[in-house]
Amino acid sequence: MRIAAFGEIMMRLTPPEYLLLEQTKEVRLDFTGTGVNILSNLAHFGHETTMITNLPDNRLGEAAKASVRQLGIQDRWIGTKGNHIGSYFAEMGFGPRPTQVTYQNRRSSSFGVSDASNYEFDRFLDEVDLVHICGISLSLTDATRDAAFSLAEKAHKHGKKVCFDFNFRPSLNEEHSDTFMREQYQKILPYCDLVFGSQRDLTDLLGMTLDETLESTKQFDELVHRFMKEYSLELFAGTIRQTEKEKSYLTGFLCDAVSCVQAAPREIIQLDRIGAGDGYAAGVLLGFIEKWSLSETVEFATVNGVLAHTIQGDVPLTTRKQVKHIIEQPTVNLIR
Amino acid sequence: MRIAAFGEIMMRLTPPEYLLLEQTKEVRLDFTGTGVNILSNLAHFGHETTMITNLPDNRLGEAAKASVRQLGIQDRWIGTKGNHIGSYFAEMGFGPRPTQVTYQNRRSSSFGVSDASNYEFDRFLDEVDLVHICGISLSLTDATRDAAFSLAEKAHKHGKKVCFDFNFRPSLNEEHSDTFMREQYQKILPYCDLVFGSQRDLTDLLGMTLDETLESTKQFDELVHRFMKEYSLELFAGTIRQTEKEKSYLTGFLCDAVSCVQAAPREIIQLDRIGAGDGYAAGVLLGFIEKWSLSETVEFATVNGVLAHTIQGDVPLTTRKQVKHIIEQPTVNLIR
Amino acid sequence: MRIAAFGEIMMRLTPPEYLLLEQTKEVRLDFTGTGVNILSNLAHFGHETTMITNLPDNRLGEAAKASVRQLGIQDRWIGTKGNHIGSYFAEMGFGPRPTQVTYQNRRSSSFGVSDASNYEFDRFLDEVDLVHICGISLSLTDATRDAAFSLAEKAHKHGKKVCFDFNFRPSLNEEHSDTFMREQYQKILPYCDLVFGSQRDLTDLLGMTLDETLESTKQFDELVHRFMKEYSLELFAGTIRQTEKEKSYLTGFLCDAVSCVQAAPREIIQLDRIGAGDGYAAGVLLGFIEKWSLSETVEFATVNGVLAHTIQGDVPLTTRKQVKHIIEQPTVNLIR
Amino acid sequence: MRIAAFGEIMMRLTPPEYLLLEQTKEVRLDFTGTGVNILSNLAHFGHETTMITNLPDNRLGEAAKASVRQLGIQDRWIGTKGNHIGSYFAEMGFGPRPTQVTYQNRRSSSFGVSDASNYEFDRFLDEVDLVHICGISLSLTDATRDAAFSLAEKAHKHGKKVCFDFNFRPSLNEEHSDTFMREQYQKILPYCDLVFGSQRDLTDLLGMTLDETLESTKQFDELVHRFMKEYSLELFAGTIRQTEKEKSYLTGFLCDAVSCVQAAPREIIQLDRIGAGDGYAAGVLLGFIEKWSLSETVEFATVNGVLAHTIQGDVPLTTRKQVKHIIEQPTVNLIR
Amino acid sequence: MRIAAFGEIMMRLTPPEYLLLEQTKEVRLDFTGTGVNILSNLAHFGHETTMITNLPDNRLGEAAKASVRQLGIQDRWIGTKGNHIGSYFAEMGFGPRPTQVTYQNRRSSSFGVSDASNYEFDRFLDEVDLVHICGISLSLTDATRDAAFSLAEKAHKHGKKVCFDFNFRPSLNEEHSDTFMREQYQKILPYCDLVFGSQRDLTDLLGMTLDETLESTKQFDELVHRFMKEYSLELFAGTIRQTEKEKSYLTGFLCDAVSCVQAAPREIIQLDRIGAGDGYAAGVLLGFIEKWSLSETVEFATVNGVLAHTIQGDVPLTTRKQVKHIIEQPTVNLIR
Amino acid sequence: MRIAAFGEIMMRLTPPEYLLLEQTKEVRLDFTGTGVNILSNLAHFGHETTMITNLPDNRLGEAAKASVRQLGIQDRWIGTKGNHIGSYFAEMGFGPRPTQVTYQNRRSSSFGVSDASNYEFDRFLDEVDLVHICGISLSLTDATRDAAFSLAEKAHKHGKKVCFDFNFRPSLNEEHSDTFMREQYQKILPYCDLVFGSQRDLTDLLGMTLDETLESTKQFDELVHRFMKEYSLELFAGTIRQTEKEKSYLTGFLCDAVSCVQAAPREIIQLDRIGAGDGYAAGVLLGFIEKWSLSETVEFATVNGVLAHTIQGDVPLTTRKQVKHIIEQPTVNLIR
Repeated sequence: MRIAAFGEIMMRLTPPEYLLLEQTKEVRLDFTGTGVNILSNLAHFGHETTMITNLPDNRLGEAAKASVRQLGIQDRWIGTKGNHIGSYFAEMGFGPRPTQVTYQNRRSSSFGVSDASNYEFDRFLDEVDLVHICGISLSLTDATRDAAFSLAEKAHKHGKKVCFDFNFRPSLNEEHSDTFMREQYQKILPYCDLVFGSQRDLTDLLGMTLDETLESTKQFDELVHRFMKEYSLELFAGTIRQTEKEKSYLTGFLCDAVSCVQAAPREIIQLDRIGAGDGYAAGVLLGFIEKWSLSETVEFATVNGVLAHTIQGDVPLTTRKQVKHIIEQPTVNLIR
Repeated sequence: MRIAAFGEIMMRLTPPEYLLLEQTKEVRLDFTGTGVNILSNLAHFGHETTMITNLPDNRLGEAAKASVRQLGIQDRWIGTKGNHIGSYFAEMGFGPRPTQVTYQNRRSSSFGVSDASNYEFDRFLDEVDLVHICGISLSLTDATRDAAFSLAEKAHKHGKKVCFDFNFRPSLNEEHSDTFMREQYQKILPYCDLVFGSQRDLTDLLGMTLDETLESTKQFDELVHRFMKEYSLELFAGTIRQTEKEKSYLTGFLCDAVSCVQAAPREIIQLDRIGAGDGYAAGVLLGFIEKWSLSETVEFATVNGVLAHTIQGDVPLTTRKQVKHIIEQPTVNLIR
Repeated sequence: MRIAAFGEIMMRLTPPEYLLLEQTKEVRLDFTGTGVNILSNLAHFGHETTMITNLPDNRLGEAAKASVRQLGIQDRWIGTKGNHIGSYFAEMGFGPRPTQVTYQNRRSSSFGVSDASNYEFDRFLDEVDLVHICGISLSLTDATRDAAFSLAEKAHKHGKKVCFDFNFRPSLNEEHSDTFMREQYQKILPYCDLVFGSQRDLTDLLGMTLDETLESTKQFDELVHRFMKEYSLELFAGTIRQTEKEKSYLTGFLCDAVSCVQAAPREIIQLDRIGAGDGYAAGVLLGFIEKWSLSETVEFATVNGVLAHTIQGDVPLTTRKQVKHIIEQPTVNLIR
Repeated sequence: MRIAAFGEIMMRLTPPEYLLLEQTKEVRLDFTGTGVNILSNLAHFGHETTMITNLPDNRLGEAAKASVRQLGIQDRWIGTKGNHIGSYFAEMGFGPRPTQVTYQNRRSSSFGVSDASNYEFDRFLDEVDLVHICGISLSLTDATRDAAFSLAEKAHKHGKKVCFDFNFRPSLNEEHSDTFMREQYQKILPYCDLVFGSQRDLTDLLGMTLDETLESTKQFDELVHRFMKEYSLELFAGTIRQTEKEKSYLTGFLCDAVSCVQAAPREIIQLDRIGAGDGYAAGVLLGFIEKWSLSETVEFATVNGVLAHTIQGDVPLTTRKQVKHIIEQPTVNLIR
Repeated sequence: MRIAAFGEIMMRLTPPEYLLLEQTKEVRLDFTGTGVNILSNLAHFGHETTMITNLPDNRLGEAAKASVRQLGIQDRWIGTKGNHIGSYFAEMGFGPRPTQVTYQNRRSSSFGVSDASNYEFDRFLDEVDLVHICGISLSLTDATRDAAFSLAEKAHKHGKKVCFDFNFRPSLNEEHSDTFMREQYQKILPYCDLVFGSQRDLTDLLGMTLDETLESTKQFDELVHRFMKEYSLELFAGTIRQTEKEKSYLTGFLCDAVSCVQAAPREIIQLDRIGAGDGYAAGVLLGFIEKWSLSETVEFATVNGVLAHTIQGDVPLTTRKQVKHIIEQPTVNLIR
Repeated sequence: MRIAAFGEIMMRLTPPEYLLLEQTKEVRLDFTGTGVNILSNLAHFGHETTMITNLPDNRLGEAAKASVRQLGIQDRWIGTKGNHIGSYFAEMGFGPRPTQVTYQNRRSSSFGVSDASNYEFDRFLDEVDLVHICGISLSLTDATRDAAFSLAEKAHKHGKKVCFDFNFRPSLNEEHSDTFMREQYQKILPYCDLVFGSQRDLTDLLGMTLDETLESTKQFDELVHRFMKEYSLELFAGTIRQTEKEKSYLTGFLCDAVSCVQAAPREIIQLDRIGAGDGYAAGVLLGFIEKWSLSETVEFATVNGVLAHTIQGDVPLTTRKQVKHIIEQPTVNLIR
């Protein structure tokens, strides 16, 4: 199965050794983005992946493409438009000090100014079997919204699988009303087959309600299946974070049309506080592509999400072998 | 309120990534000192701050001044005298391995060789409302002792607030008798309004005794208030470290003429084992300047002290917003 | 004399050791801009300097202000507006390979979106004696043009010296006609006292013509004096680059109402290919402020420009002592 | 035209800032090799390129492949065999101090232990139009010699262009007699279409002699054409270094069946002393692929070789735009 | 007592800041090996130490010797043979992600190709009192096996103490049968006086069995003493790792002919997951050399092993003072 | 011949990539000093070398000793006294910008406070054949002067060769009269056998005069031989720098009792502007130890001095092979 993603390639700048921006003259430069993260991980799992997006026609665009290729993603559908790359600075948190992200220039980025007319979606879709669309497209600009709708619709028509990620960020939507945002999500969901999201996305964003007449343990499943049925989804998945005695745990849930399964919670030890969600999504997609059982998939995906936190940067660079090692030999912390 | 500090600007050299000195050819170079740390933090909280000290008239002195300015401190009262900057190497500890500090050249530093005649204290005091004096001045050299006494006395006479920090280090006082050191502290305290110290400073250094006829929970308060009354102090404050089940906690206490309050203990997670005391002091001074309640002040200051340990180097670079974030949303460890 | 500048604070990102962007994950981060460069240099020469501009109210804005303070420039007139800092990547050239600059996000920067209403020019002008305005303001956006005109006019009315720098970049003006740009420059020049530019600025941009009936050696002087007279300028200055036998040389020229002087050419050896112009301008301003003779000024400024190329980054961090050392002891290449 | 190369992917480790191995604990890690260098450059010129070789099935092999992809080369024909990557340390020279290369482990590398049976040459050749074979294969091991002969023969039979590079290193051939080595080269040449080499390769290695009865200026052309005719070559090319007044110059020569052209010498200014040959070869191949004239090709290739020396590492990362800039605007050393 | 060791000097290459190989272009370069680690630690404890091994006669060999000298080990018995240094890349683990070691080129290293005839063991033994032999010699190559046997036999004959370390790695012995490996260990043990190993070495490798008729707490002691008696050993020692509530603990055991003692378990906090075993061995040897009691030795050695995990790299660079500090003042985590 | 040196071990701190102190937070840390430089170089040439000096008994002292050992120098005569290491910051010059050295704390260093009673010179001299004494000892403090005289006298009495280096720095002698310094040099010279210096040392410092009645080309030789005769010296040597057409050249001269020879001037290309003198001295000592001819020695020493400028830091780490390579194959700038 040939996997593709549509979304933004961003530049991440990170001071070394947990320093604040004021404390350093050196920053580490990476290229990232939800699509990049998921595709790179799937490439490391052995699948062929392709990114469709736009970058500026300058040295930064060239460097971004080189980086994307290094991550294992094909760059032949990366076009050029506009002059900027959206970027963010990540001051890495430590202990009680949070990781602080500062964005630069997202809406006027090459991706932000590209609408459907700036991509050759038809020819592109000929070469792919599943396309991932990041929900941030619905928030960023009119152009990205236009492109996302167009791609989702075309893919659906061509019988390609559409995987969609809610990725709703209030901070990116201060200028839009809740109703406006709800309508955008409602507009794209009918084209989708696999969706990543949370209970809050369904209740707060889409305005659905839990059926409180049910046992509390069944309310979530019922909600999810109501949602999946409405939009004829094959899979709905997401992660849940829990804190217990000052330790944090990650659990993944995964629902098909029939049932929902949940993984055993895994302790989170974070080298980098960004990226577990995309690691989880990559794991779910791997199981989907390779037709694993729900429970096998959810365990693999959860471990993969946990591992993503032990790797610097947003991109989960795990291999199949590494994930299996954690599942099978969790106490062996030195391999030689 | 215009805040100033009198003290040494030191150079700190730190190997990267917890390496020992033998293991590296690269060291990180920072400028620090109790006065620098507190003033920089107050500047980050939005107050105007000024340092009075001396530096060598060479490239290192220039670099030190540039660094102090970057930290937000005005440098117009930093003069030149002597040829050296006191420095220390900090080999950062990890787990059971302690952080190891090695001093170079403190007593012959520009600050160490400057006495009262090398500063224009009168003109300087015209421009400030509160001056912080670091107790290390009493230990370092005859010249620094002379300067500290002169400054404290003049400030007191001009009706400026004097804030004094015991900062007693036995290792700096091996050549002086206990009696001699006690006399120095007794000589400066009458000029002071706010004092940072510990129970041990009062008992071991000043020779005061706990009134053991009182309930044990009241002995400390009584001791502090006896001390404050003797020297007509407005505030006395300090920090207490506790260890429980292999975890460390920081609590701050803060006393005015009437009562003492203590903050809820906060777990200490250390990126850098140096600097919490100055972070706490900066927090207390902020509350004092802005006339906050004791309890509001002590909580803010304690969180600020804990945050100081999550920042590389001695200088607590926290902002008001960061401290409030920890108080209000302690579980949000990623801000974007 | 209190010197100020109005202009953009940019972020410069530079790969280490002459690497290309594709070759590195580490970049060096500096803050720069014509105003920053000139003021920092004047501060290093011992003068009080202030920057007026806007920065975003976020971590990058705070880091930029810290950096500007470190450079010796007061930050009390730096306000906040907008969300972005203009930035550029500089891939350092080597031998025949040119230095390649790639801009990001200039027009939507905090500076780019700020017009006259976003600054308190009147109160600001009370505190300064001379203000430098960078000509890039005329090209960047309508807002910056508006702000520059407003500031120049007010300063002129208040009897403050206005120093203006043509700094014309065709690449920033592709959307404007030549006529439009000429009009902008013609509009600001009547408010100016000191101007930095080149013969080409006068002929190509302003449309003046050399009087070819004169001896060729006198044509330039005549042109400059015609221009200076038209706008009642006190000084006009600039630099000329010459290449001879594969070596490059820098010469500065400096004209007052009466005459023009030129410095002896100095060989250019470049560690960094950006920054000589601002170094030259800082030297000229120093001579102006301190009322040196034209010839003394032009020599100092030229050496300062040459030295700027031997310092990493755009900011010329030279001291008076360093410039004098080159003039007096050019062969002593090791000082201890 | 789809371009491919067969050869070793090596790991290069380089101390920073011209340090000796004894002086540093940090080394820069790159992946390189003649094939990598040429293909990466052609990819940067816009052509599709593929590498065929073997790497170990471990983390180093994965890192090497990621690096090769980043350079723009497809990795689908890179297989796994053996356990090692050949590597070398390059202590960068400065002034009279030479660059010192120290090899590790070449003969037992994954490439060194792979013979023809370890590659799927037939399927591979279906996807390529021209294949470059590095002459080092003839020196390294029996296995690499076997693989090189097999690939050259098959490619020739399938009507694919074979490009061969003498790349003869006496230091790699101490155990073989001159006769043995000559026979190997004589065995592969009949399959070749384009050859890179020097006069010395023809005389010393192949034992050909200059016809000294000719004018000295014609001897080289006659020798080359005699050689080309013997092996039915389309192109023969190489570089010549000249030193004049302590400056070094690079010239390229390029011969087709009819004539030889030579480029104007270009001064060599070296950031890195390794890599000009591969840069020149990439330039020649670009001209060949795109059917440029000999003289256009040789100028472009020579400039490209000179530029390769201004880039850190062995891989010439130049773009078409950069090479043209040097040809058209050699004095513009700052582009913005 | 003059201490020596026979074994391999390896090169370790480590990406900084827990990065994966794919994520960095910079690696840290150290020289290490069981012998190096133990001798360096003993040198830091104040003893004279010497290494006997072979290195290539090139820049890497020179750099390795310089590094060994820096660690405090004399290099006069380090000869030259072969062309390679065995090396390994260590991708440092974090949290659940294991440290991943990738070896390069061990068997063809200078050490791997050197047999007894390549060393002057007799002259060497004249200058030493105790020689440590690393068990890896028995696995690596026929040559290293030959050299190890020869050295052990000669040392034993000359009345020098022989210290042997099982260091059995299944991954290095895939080509040998269990029986073959057992015979090699059985062949060297009669020459030994002190042995480091584990219960598993005695049971799985040597084929001994626990006497299950004894109380379970006594089985291990009985096994060890049976083993020690068979080979007339003075000391047998090793470490045990325990995990409890997600924390890890290290305990050391130490047996002389009469009894076995065990240290109190110490929590392991790991900066580097490699090296505790060699730290423990160095501690045991120190106690042996200085004739400490078993219990004093085992505590010191265990703390030293725990400290080794807090130091980057394999080499435990602890001093006597540091170890004693942890024993005496475990809560003082900042020394100044 | 066992070579030793008496002198200071200093710490050198150098910003990377030609940055100024204000521009960096990272500095490179090396240990150096005339004795260290010369001995390390002789060790790299294959001779046994030992340093006698004092260092503080702390982590910096330990790091300094480790570094000295790495350089190939034995540390068994390095004692402990005092608390500080003299240090200097070197801001590396570029083009016309000079290298700027800033000293810290030389006079109160461990070396500076040690007099003859703090060394065991007699036992030390038993183990050496030639001892180098750096003339800076005569300037630094009364204690170092005392130690230098004592060592020179004892060595002379024991029949050991004494090598002395004028190394006169006016900046270190501002408090002493010319007469005082002359007397110190006159006091030590009678004990010396080999002396490094310049014509100016003989005329300005010692007050000797050129015999201007001689031909100008013979005046220098006559002066030197008069000086050598007065103090019964075996060798007098030094370097001369010349500048021609903006290029610099180094020449060495070397005189025995009979004649003076001079080397062919070599162009100086500087990576580091410190260290050529010590490289030259090491070369001269090598020739002396191995009884080479004057002309062979002076050429080797001059090339070694020139090479020293191509190596970062003060320590000339050249090998015999490298020096010979330059002499024999000056145009081969890449060795593999």
